[in-house]
Formats: sequence, C-alpha cells, structure tokens
Amino acid sequence: MSRVVDRGSLRFVFLLVAAIAADASAHCSGSSSPLVRNISDIPQGNFGSGGFAHATIAGAVSHGMKEVEVWLQTFSPGTRTPIHRHSCEEVFVVLKGKGTLLLGSSSFRDPGTPQEFHIYANSTFSIPVNDPHQVLNTDETEDLQLLVVISRPPVKVFIYEDWNMHHTAAKLKFPYYWDEECFHVKDEL
Amino acid sequence: MSRVVDRGSLRFVFLLVAAIAADASAHCSGSSSPLVRNISDIPQGNFGSGGFAHATIAGAVSHGMKEVEVWLQTFSPGTRTPIHRHSCEEVFVVLKGKGTLLLGSSSFRDPGTPQEFHIYANSTFSIPVNDPHQVLNTDETEDLQLLVVISRPPVKVFIYEDWNMHHTAAKLKFPYYWDEECFHVKDEL
Repeated sequence: MSRVVDRGSLRFVFLLVAAIAADASAHCSGSSSPLVRNISDIPQGNFGSGGFAHATIAGAVSHGMKEVEVWLQTFSPGTRTPIHRHSCEEVFVVLKGKGTLLLGSSSFRDPGTPQEFHIYANSTFSIPVNDPHQVLNTDETEDLQLLVVISRPPVKVFIYEDWNMHHTAAKLKFPYYWDEECFHVKDEL
Repeated sequence: MSRVVDRGSLRFVFLLVAAIAADASAHCSGSSSPLVRNISDIPQGNFGSGGFAHATIAGAVSHGMKEVEVWLQTFSPGTRTPIHRHSCEEVFVVLKGKGTLLLGSSSFRDPGTPQEFHIYANSTFSIPVNDPHQVLNTDETEDLQLLVVISRPPVKVFIYEDWNMHHTAAKLKFPYYWDEECFHVKDEL
C-alpha cells in the first residue's frame, strides 16, 4: 500500500509543481504578454509584507521592459516601505489616500534626520537619485495607492535599518521581492 | 504726442515680455520646483491642437529629469495623436474613457495597415520601440485620459502624414511642442 501512496504523492507533487510553474510563467511572460492588459488582471502580491500590495504594470523581468518600469502599489493604514535608496530615477503619482514621504540625505555618512513631506491624492513627487527615503501611509482609515515609475530596471535597492545607518552599511536586495520569481524562470529558459 | 504714445507702447511691450518670461519660468523651473506638486496646479496646454490637453507631471526640461518623463494627456471625443514613432520606451495607463491604439510596423519600408487595439479605463499598454503608432479617442461623448511614461527624455518624435509614408520620410519634430518654451528659457540661462 505504501508504494501506491508514494505514487499518488509523487503525482500530486508533480501536478503541484506544474501548476506553480504555469502560474509563474503566466506572471513572467516577458514581451509575449498581450499588448493591452487590464490592470485588474495583473497579479498582485504582498511579498511577506502584510497590508501591502504590489502589481508590476510594466516590468523588465515580467514584460521585457529595458528602460522604464511602472508599478501599482497599495499601502493599508499604518504600513510603509523600508528606508531605502537606489541610483535610478523614481516618480510617484498618488492615486488615492494620503501619507508621508521621509527623505534623508546622500551627502553625509548616513541619511540623518529626514525631511518630512505630506503626500495626497493627485499629488506627484520624484525622489532625488540615491537619496534614502521611505513612504508611509499615515492615515488611520484609508488605503494609500501609488503609481510608481522607475528608470533602468530591474531596481537595485539598498535597505537601511534606521536613519543613522551608514550608507556603506545599507544592504543590497537584488533581485527585489517582486522580481525574484521571474528571475528564476528566466534562468531556466 | 507720438513720443508719449511710443513710450507707453514700449512700457506695455516690456511688461508683456516680462510677464510672459515670468510665466514661462514658472513652467520651466528645472529641479528647483517643489518636491511634492499638486497635479491640478501643473500648467496644461493644447499646443495648437483643439480638444487636447497635456501636462508634464515630471519632465526633463521642466523638472530636471534625466531618465524618465511622466505626462498627463486628455483627448476629447474624436481627437487623436499624429501617427508617430520614437526610439524611447513608452508605457500608457488609461485613467478614464476608451479609444483605439493603431500600431504599424517598423520592419518594412512604411508602417503599412496598422493593427487595431481597444483601450479602456484601467488598461495599460507599451509601444514597441520605433513602431509607428497613433492613439485616438473613438468615443462619442467621453474624454480619454492617459498617464504616459517615456524613457530617455526629452522625446524625439518622427511624424508620418499617413500609414503609407516611408519611415525615412517621417519628419523629426524636436523639441516637441510642450518642451519648446522651456528649451528657450534654458538657452537664456
């Protein structure tokens, strides 16, 4: 009986792996995805961060973009990005909600006390290249939804534990969470 | 009396030029513009095209961007872009309305009969680099509003008179309409 169970288990594992691979390839379709896509159909993930949702509207590893990426990100009340920096340009358009942008300096050995900016629906802002920053939903009830544009994808992010961490100690996270799955698929091709 | 009139006229012309220059410099503030901007406060223009409105949310000549630009464009019913191509990447997010994307080929000597795609609110699409294309509001009543992202600004556009015009005959329009004013101001600095 154990052999029968083993065969069944193997078949189950095989089907599970096939299903995961098919699901991953649907997310990571490179330049072969349909030209016009419904944003509501684009997979969203929280990548281990509760209260957060990310969808890659147009991406390097997911859609074959080479020079720009566009993301849709939603932060529930109280959630935030890590403190981080990157050498690419980044433009935000706030679609819904309100919150705070904290912006440190890249001119000293650490980001220092950040400047604080109020962000709100129908506002836009760009992050100066390499300046450490953090976006927070500081509202108590409403989601903060952002359209994010970056250059030179895929993004190479350096993460800080706090605003006093030296720039040289910030930790590189590459590939970033939402690119990890597609990088694996790409390697297999 | 003619000398008095002349002095008055000269003063009027001086004030008019000063007012135009001040208005232009407010639109063309380079990297010195406020970090967080209300999109409703960003100047919109139709650049001689009735039923069209363009606002540069983040731009090279208007805000000092080097790698990406973001535009907000609104097309009233029946209006359209010219048939054009560019070697930069371009991503559209449709915010409101519906319309048609016409997409020609860059593989032959002219764009040929274009492919036709339905575009609609909450859809997204990217234009393959160098493919001639045209976006049209084909709706009878509703505006078509788009968020547009391009790489490698400012944009260098080649314009076609029709889908049978040879690629080599398409006419370069640089700087493009919404960058012209700021290019002048930049030259004076």
